[in-house]
Amino acid sequence: MSSLTVEEERIRRYGREIFARMDRRNIVPFSPAWFDDVLMNTTMQAEKLKVQLFRFIDTLPLLKDSKTVADHLKEYLGTTESGLPGIARHFLNRLPGEGWAGTLLAKTAKNNAEHMARKFIAGSNVQEAISAIKQLRNRKYGFTIDLLGEATITEAEADGVQKQYFDLVEGLPGVINNLPEIPCVDRNHLGPIPRVNISVKLSSLFSQFDPIDPVGTTRSVLKRLRPIMSKAMSRGEFINFDMEQYSFKDTTLHIFKTVLEEPEFRNWPHVGIAIQAYLKDTEKDLQELLEWTRKRGTPIAVRLVKGAYWDYETVIAAQQDWPVPVWTEKWQSDACFERCGRFLLQNYNWIAPAFGSHNVRSISTMLAVAEELGVPKGAYEFQMLYGMADEFKDAMVELGQRIRIYTPYGQLLPGMAYLVRRLLENTSNDSFLRASFRENTTEDKLLMNPVHKAQANTTNGTTAAPSHSEKPGKFKNEPLAEYHREFNRDAMSHALAEVAKQLDRDYVPFIGGQAVAAEKWQDATNPSQSSQKLGRWAASTPKQAEEAIASAKKNYPAWRDTPAAKRAEYLRKIADVMRKRRWELSAWAVYETAKPWREADADIAEAIDFCDYYAELFLKMVKPKRMDVPGEENSYFYEPRGVAVVIAPWNFPLAIMCGMTVAALVTGNTVIIKPAEQSTIIGAKFAEVLKEAELPPVWSFLPGIGEEIGPTLVQSPDVDLIVFTGSQQVGLWINENAAKTPPVQHHVKRVIAELGGKNAAIVDADADLDEAVKGVLDSAFGYSGQKCSACSRAIVHESIHDQFLHRLIEAAKSLTISPASDPGCSMGPVIDADAKKRILAMIAKGKSQSLLVYAADLGALADQGHYVGPHIFADVHETDVIAQEEIFGPVLAVMKAKNLDHALQIANGTRYALTGGIFSRSPSTLERVKKEFRVGNLYVNRKITGALVERQPFGGFKLSGIGSKAGGPDYLLQFVIPRVITENTMRRGFAPTLES
Amino acid sequence: MSSLTVEEERIRRYGREIFARMDRRNIVPFSPAWFDDVLMNTTMQAEKLKVQLFRFIDTLPLLKDSKTVADHLKEYLGTTESGLPGIARHFLNRLPGEGWAGTLLAKTAKNNAEHMARKFIAGSNVQEAISAIKQLRNRKYGFTIDLLGEATITEAEADGVQKQYFDLVEGLPGVINNLPEIPCVDRNHLGPIPRVNISVKLSSLFSQFDPIDPVGTTRSVLKRLRPIMSKAMSRGEFINFDMEQYSFKDTTLHIFKTVLEEPEFRNWPHVGIAIQAYLKDTEKDLQELLEWTRKRGTPIAVRLVKGAYWDYETVIAAQQDWPVPVWTEKWQSDACFERCGRFLLQNYNWIAPAFGSHNVRSISTMLAVAEELGVPKGAYEFQMLYGMADEFKDAMVELGQRIRIYTPYGQLLPGMAYLVRRLLENTSNDSFLRASFRENTTEDKLLMNPVHKAQANTTNGTTAAPSHSEKPGKFKNEPLAEYHREFNRDAMSHALAEVAKQLDRDYVPFIGGQAVAAEKWQDATNPSQSSQKLGRWAASTPKQAEEAIASAKKNYPAWRDTPAAKRAEYLRKIADVMRKRRWELSAWAVYETAKPWREADADIAEAIDFCDYYAELFLKMVKPKRMDVPGEENSYFYEPRGVAVVIAPWNFPLAIMCGMTVAALVTGNTVIIKPAEQSTIIGAKFAEVLKEAELPPVWSFLPGIGEEIGPTLVQSPDVDLIVFTGSQQVGLWINENAAKTPPVQHHVKRVIAELGGKNAAIVDADADLDEAVKGVLDSAFGYSGQKCSACSRAIVHESIHDQFLHRLIEAAKSLTISPASDPGCSMGPVIDADAKKRILAMIAKGKSQSLLVYAADLGALADQGHYVGPHIFADVHETDVIAQEEIFGPVLAVMKAKNLDHALQIANGTRYALTGGIFSRSPSTLERVKKEFRVGNLYVNRKITGALVERQPFGGFKLSGIGSKAGGPDYLLQFVIPRVITENTMRRGFAPTLES
Repeated sequence: MSSLTVEEERIRRYGREIFARMDRRNIVPFSPAWFDDVLMNTTMQAEKLKVQLFRFIDTLPLLKDSKTVADHLKEYLGTTESGLPGIARHFLNRLPGEGWAGTLLAKTAKNNAEHMARKFIAGSNVQEAISAIKQLRNRKYGFTIDLLGEATITEAEADGVQKQYFDLVEGLPGVINNLPEIPCVDRNHLGPIPRVNISVKLSSLFSQFDPIDPVGTTRSVLKRLRPIMSKAMSRGEFINFDMEQYSFKDTTLHIFKTVLEEPEFRNWPHVGIAIQAYLKDTEKDLQELLEWTRKRGTPIAVRLVKGAYWDYETVIAAQQDWPVPVWTEKWQSDACFERCGRFLLQNYNWIAPAFGSHNVRSISTMLAVAEELGVPKGAYEFQMLYGMADEFKDAMVELGQRIRIYTPYGQLLPGMAYLVRRLLENTSNDSFLRASFRENTTEDKLLMNPVHKAQANTTNGTTAAPSHSEKPGKFKNEPLAEYHREFNRDAMSHALAEVAKQLDRDYVPFIGGQAVAAEKWQDATNPSQSSQKLGRWAASTPKQAEEAIASAKKNYPAWRDTPAAKRAEYLRKIADVMRKRRWELSAWAVYETAKPWREADADIAEAIDFCDYYAELFLKMVKPKRMDVPGEENSYFYEPRGVAVVIAPWNFPLAIMCGMTVAALVTGNTVIIKPAEQSTIIGAKFAEVLKEAELPPVWSFLPGIGEEIGPTLVQSPDVDLIVFTGSQQVGLWINENAAKTPPVQHHVKRVIAELGGKNAAIVDADADLDEAVKGVLDSAFGYSGQKCSACSRAIVHESIHDQFLHRLIEAAKSLTISPASDPGCSMGPVIDADAKKRILAMIAKGKSQSLLVYAADLGALADQGHYVGPHIFADVHETDVIAQEEIFGPVLAVMKAKNLDHALQIANGTRYALTGGIFSRSPSTLERVKKEFRVGNLYVNRKITGALVERQPFGGFKLSGIGSKAGGPDYLLQFVIPRVITENTMRRGFAPTLES
Repeated sequence: MSSLTVEEERIRRYGREIFARMDRRNIVPFSPAWFDDVLMNTTMQAEKLKVQLFRFIDTLPLLKDSKTVADHLKEYLGTTESGLPGIARHFLNRLPGEGWAGTLLAKTAKNNAEHMARKFIAGSNVQEAISAIKQLRNRKYGFTIDLLGEATITEAEADGVQKQYFDLVEGLPGVINNLPEIPCVDRNHLGPIPRVNISVKLSSLFSQFDPIDPVGTTRSVLKRLRPIMSKAMSRGEFINFDMEQYSFKDTTLHIFKTVLEEPEFRNWPHVGIAIQAYLKDTEKDLQELLEWTRKRGTPIAVRLVKGAYWDYETVIAAQQDWPVPVWTEKWQSDACFERCGRFLLQNYNWIAPAFGSHNVRSISTMLAVAEELGVPKGAYEFQMLYGMADEFKDAMVELGQRIRIYTPYGQLLPGMAYLVRRLLENTSNDSFLRASFRENTTEDKLLMNPVHKAQANTTNGTTAAPSHSEKPGKFKNEPLAEYHREFNRDAMSHALAEVAKQLDRDYVPFIGGQAVAAEKWQDATNPSQSSQKLGRWAASTPKQAEEAIASAKKNYPAWRDTPAAKRAEYLRKIADVMRKRRWELSAWAVYETAKPWREADADIAEAIDFCDYYAELFLKMVKPKRMDVPGEENSYFYEPRGVAVVIAPWNFPLAIMCGMTVAALVTGNTVIIKPAEQSTIIGAKFAEVLKEAELPPVWSFLPGIGEEIGPTLVQSPDVDLIVFTGSQQVGLWINENAAKTPPVQHHVKRVIAELGGKNAAIVDADADLDEAVKGVLDSAFGYSGQKCSACSRAIVHESIHDQFLHRLIEAAKSLTISPASDPGCSMGPVIDADAKKRILAMIAKGKSQSLLVYAADLGALADQGHYVGPHIFADVHETDVIAQEEIFGPVLAVMKAKNLDHALQIANGTRYALTGGIFSRSPSTLERVKKEFRVGNLYVNRKITGALVERQPFGGFKLSGIGSKAGGPDYLLQFVIPRVITENTMRRGFAPTLES
């Protein structure tokens, strides 16, 4: 203690004073508050129970009757009994059963949750919020009001949010400004400040808010924000820009700066923005903000917070294998907060600081720094959350500080998300509140400098960020482009421009890795702009197909005998070349197959994944399995099948073609690649990649018309293996024809086929609608529904059907339909004129049986390319053609289900079994759906497209496919033949000792 | 030391006296003997090098030119360089390269090996043996002469051995009895004893020596042994019965007793038998031998040895999972030797003991016990091996003891086996010789009581017996019947008799586990005796097939949803029922499919194996594979396909049917079993087993005519999976038809098929011909060649072709062709009249192209059943019909190969790729054949049939099969469909912590 610096001494002084005023032990035993605390404390010790409890609370508002509540309560808390510590088990065992006791319990639970929510949420409407604000002011607190709401996924909702803000801006001043002044709240060191303070979330003002397109997003957000700001400015109010998840940060800052540079707002000082100390970017951001403010010439305010999305950010970073944007240790955020706070206090005349924290150490530090720097009281303020740490707030008021309460109000339903976040915060291992109020931590420890804490406390109580590397195996998915980072957007724009200069090229077949002469030329065009030619490609002839087969056969033995490690090495090389050419390949996918930026990027990343994953998988698999006994060695190992024909689709033009090809190659087969006509140039780019990776002559590339060369490839007696992804019709034709074994053929052909789907998502009564609407929308209309995995049926519980359908239609309306090269494009055209014709014909057929409730109006776009907007049918019967036939376009059938039985019956009632989805928050429903919704890939509470290699091995059954899942542990087995060698090692009665 | 008993003191006294006389350090440094010793000692420290060196020595005699010798030397010793200790590496690195130095080395190696062999083998012919014997007598040693020879695998060879014994019996007395008498050798305590002492190996006197048939074996052995014994008796010679491997022991004792009870030999005392102290049976055997001797009334002799097949016995026991017949610790054998020795000395007037050992402790004990019991000197003798421990022998002579030298002579080639055994003995960790001569072990330690040694020395230097349990996993193959044990033979005889009483029964179809009405009856008959009816079975109708499919479909969901563990439990129950009914099921296989005893037993054991293995494999596989990342749980798991049709063959009537069925059942499919017409009763017995195991109604049993119900089963749109084993023609028909997917069918059928083979064994120039002839013979003619795995082509290196062919024909001639119920049957009939007709037609066709060099004369048997004797074609060209078409009968094509390239080209030159074999002792040849002889199951230096579940997963490719290997790790994957469930576990930005 004696070694404390002057500064630390000053901080301690403030801290002890605050603690003295707080009197930590004033919670009376057996009071409701005490009971809450004990219960909470007990519960929070069991991570599993905590998860279940939060999930239950999250679901609660949607549960309509007490039976449903009781069911959910039992399902959530009943399943966690195993492995719980004694106290928690005791608590659980006292839960009443069903019947009247259950109903009573359900009501109690609902009441308790509402009670809990009321603790943190100021009211469910403006009136309630105003009376809460009045009470706050009675306690000498200021406020900033926050509007809780559902996620904005439709433009109608964005309009609604705008209106609510507008109401606040218009309504509040009349009430608030007439209240008696509280000087320490309503004035700063210079004079009066706005009493009405409104916190705004920009993402709520535009349904397609997306950092991939900052220009479009800014334009749309400002269209709704400007009138709010004008009114607020004219009424003398304060507007604060809240900060949300990291990926929105740069866009939020951009919008903040953009609007404040506009002449109307250029001189307005009563605006602020939240800055999160847990971000590694923050010190740089603050520095830039200061420079920008100076340039603008008018001060602003900054609310410095630690940040509320730490779990989310670390999980997303781990899932995507992106750099973690937040500090991974709590003390790092605390230390950053102190550095940033000092920076703000040093520049308080440009940036008025508001310190948002419940951490006594952090706040004491700000007080001490302000004292040290001589910053006048009132030039800075403190902000705390409604319903939390009231003693702390009072202590600050007693110290004469301005305290502003972040005061959320809104419907209970969306409010639960906020509640859960608050509960998490209060119960996290790192929580200062938990440490100071519920645990017996000394004041000195609580006031310790976070930097020192780092050394003292590395292993105890700190929550480590979840990490991608926790998963087994070495393979890592290639991270998708972080399009919220500017340099990635720039790289993609640049690539699009570069590729646009290369649209006059010709592409020819390759046989045994060598380009060959071309005969018949075809044009490649851009589906987004059908007049645009992308190049010419030569259709291979049946004779060339035969030559390719002969080459594959000739080159097979050497490739088969190439060491496995060497073949795996080639895959790594192919992956490396694609990594190097990633933006260029993405750009080609945008032009040739009309994939929007993210879809194009994911396609290239998946191609890279297939290379890396299969290389690694094969090296594991190639090690012979030994089953030795004394005197006998047995070795089980694999060898390739021979000549493989790969027939690829256009919808994942690089990924699927590459996956099928490299699976065949790494296992030692030679390959003939037939790309889809519609994505021949990308096929040719892949051929370039193979050349660049210096593969031996073990591959041929045969652009061509399926009907012309397909029969030759499928029926040749020299082909051992056909790997196909495409339509059911072609797949079954291949399967049937490949099964004919003429006498000249000395083997039985193997067919691996991924065919179609008619995939459904079930939306249960208790689904999180924000997620369900978004999930179904993405799954149905992402890449215009041109994925085998796409959702073409939404099966919705009747109790929420109308609500869901309404929001879904609104959400579909809100999609940005545009050329794929537009970064803001949420949906481009379909692949070609034939597809458009086919889809429109299906829609026409659908209309004869079912009700078309939404069809997008495409306007001028309709003539520019092969555009088909989103189409939604409702009241679709399960036998309707629109509910049975694969459409492969942006057409969704919404169907009403009476109950789960009915939903499952509809869901399973097609000839396909590829993907499926369930949106529900009932554990028992989830359990049943997991068992009974029989599809290859079932997704729970998320979109049903976007399978990742290794994590979601992909493929279906019934008529959706033949063979095991691509990107999964059994896939390569299909490309090989097992052999066994048994060696008798006993000679003359003597056998070598077994090696163990 | 002070605590030694009187007896131990006496033993020590003798031991020290012997050691004193031996002078252990009289080997002069730098003498050839010293160099041998150093070299040997160094080499023996490296287990791997020891193995390679012994293998090289074993191969050496067959190597015709010095280039071949050099090649083998380099191949054997070159591969061991890695991981060798320094000295050995130093030794290896000094080996010269190729060229003149290599040739010189080769010659040196050959000379050295011969030199080594000469040390232990008295000569290569009788003359050399006689002069060696003379030298032995000069050193005051007696002798017993032993004839080294190849394994007797033909009756011609047995005749040859008989002649050699005859020559010895006739020729030796004239020479030996004229030599001057050596009293201590030529007299015992009562007077003169035979000078000529001949050791006889009974297995060399009958090519089909087999303990499964003691009666037939005794008859055949005695036919050749009796004249030898008569002559020996009349000439005053001594005959000793050598003891070989454990499985021959009871038969050997039986023959010994049988012949000596015959009036001619009843009073002959000059006969002895070797008894092995390392056997756990031995004390009981000695007791019985004493009682028998007393009953006979004439004394005999016993040569008590430790036993020379310890490695072999332990390896065989481990391989077969049989009880280990030998003591597993060296000290136990030593202690047993002492107990048995005392027993013999106690009864020396009935059994004259000869103690065969080089262990000073053991010998000293015998001397001490003889002294203690007052057994007169000369009433017992000592026997030691030629070429070993000469100082010890001299010491014994000096002590006035009778020493008899076990004196082998014979060709170098067969002698090598003997040499290797001697070398092993001298270099084993347990070797007394090694301990006393090469290691610095104290006399006290060497003379320690083995029982005390056990405690003192448990972890150090004792060789543990190899154990079956060393292999990974819990699964153990069901041990085959130990037919060398009488109670097993009795059980089988009893079962055959019981089943013979049940030949009037009717067998009906089962649908959903219930017997149904029958319409059309078929007779089942015994192929061994075609007039014998075995019962009647009802041919199912197509309508019944449809009912069975409907039942399977109806019962599928409940079975699919039955917990995996429960389904696995049913398999264990099925296995248990078959275990319980094992002999009965074997007997049925003998009657209905004409399987000889061992083949029938193996079939039942394999059926049990399939149950146990698939149950275990499935329980491992059923555990979902998790691939979780933060906020996302991914689970990869399997579900069944649906309705499986199992179409079974008759040649493994229980095993294959059971394997296919239980694989489908355990994975959750319901099953329709169609047995082969020819083995319907066994099928019906399996249905009884399923009933007895109380399976739910998830199976149907449809006896029937393939042409009648096959199309219904294969083409039904309600069948998901067809599992077939049978002919190529039917298999391809199924494959082609199952691939048709009519619109009513909502899935693509899966076909798993095991088809035929045209399997070859390559016999290289350096093959061990004993093994190659036996291996090819077993593979080609076992179960009359009616196995997919049977060898139907022998591809023989031209340099040994004629020698191989000659022996092979002789061996085929020697086979016992008889009804399968005869325990001595080596080959029974083929399955039915059609098969016989088809095979004879193929033979006729073969004769038009190739040379039939052997066809068995069946005599009266030909009319009794469907017999086809072994047929051998020679000079077969690779394109001849007999070399290309599967015959599925006892027909072998022998083909001459110029070299390995040629052999491989022939071997791989068919449309099949099922099994194959290579007999070679060249490491480089083996390596190449392993790589380039592309078959499903390749066997090295053993027969190519008899794959065991798990150890040799079975199945081929090309036209030999569709799908993965039965009894292997990937088999069950074919019966299931992979699914993935992906759950987004993040709600409100909060995700549970990953469980690791």
